[in-house]
Amino acid sequence: MTDREPVPTASDAHLRPPDGARLAEATGVFAMLADTTRLHVLWLLAQKEADVGSLAERCETSRTAVSQHLAKLRLAGLVDTRRAGRHIYYRLSDGHLRRLVLEALSHADHRVSGRAPHD
Amino acid sequence: MTDREPVPTASDAHLRPPDGARLAEATGVFAMLADTTRLHVLWLLAQKEADVGSLAERCETSRTAVSQHLAKLRLAGLVDTRRAGRHIYYRLSDGHLRRLVLEALSHADHRVSGRAPHD
Repeated sequence: MTDREPVPTASDAHLRPPDGARLAEATGVFAMLADTTRLHVLWLLAQKEADVGSLAERCETSRTAVSQHLAKLRLAGLVDTRRAGRHIYYRLSDGHLRRLVLEALSHADHRVSGRAPHD
Repeated sequence: MTDREPVPTASDAHLRPPDGARLAEATGVFAMLADTTRLHVLWLLAQKEADVGSLAERCETSRTAVSQHLAKLRLAGLVDTRRAGRHIYYRLSDGHLRRLVLEALSHADHRVSGRAPHD
């Protein structure tokens, strides 16, 4: 581990001490994930892309609420959109976010179900 | 994928639609991670266990501030302690949390450095 390597590869980026910019970026993402409706939406998008209507139905909330959450997520760069005719489909912007969402819900499942977490 | 499987294994827990308890548990963890000092502390603990003094030095903040963050993290069940003589060593409570912290900082590194994220 070193913090003097000027251009580390992506795979060992987590070994460098994070600077202020990276800590701020990551905490911004965590703040976006710290909302139950947004997390539910992101979990659904981690399975497959979806439009506002189907997300609202699955989350049992209003289209307006889901649209507002999606606008925030898009502004934060966490979701992308794809237009197909009159429909707009939302999807996660990258694999890191998918892993974050699934890892956190797997962790939550261990804790809620009382099963011991694994390493 | 099904939401009718009564006792899924831990590995496919992320495929079941998360219920309110699991969403609340996960968003609570994300809220704890959405603070730059706490995230820095958790990143350091993801490398190896450490005591308050060394964490404060690495985070360039006061022992008091680090102690308060560690108390919150311990109360939330995210860190465990080990006593050795007069020293108390802190460590992450499980592998899920380690992966969350490293995944988020890897994601942040891509975004801050401008490199394309990978899937």
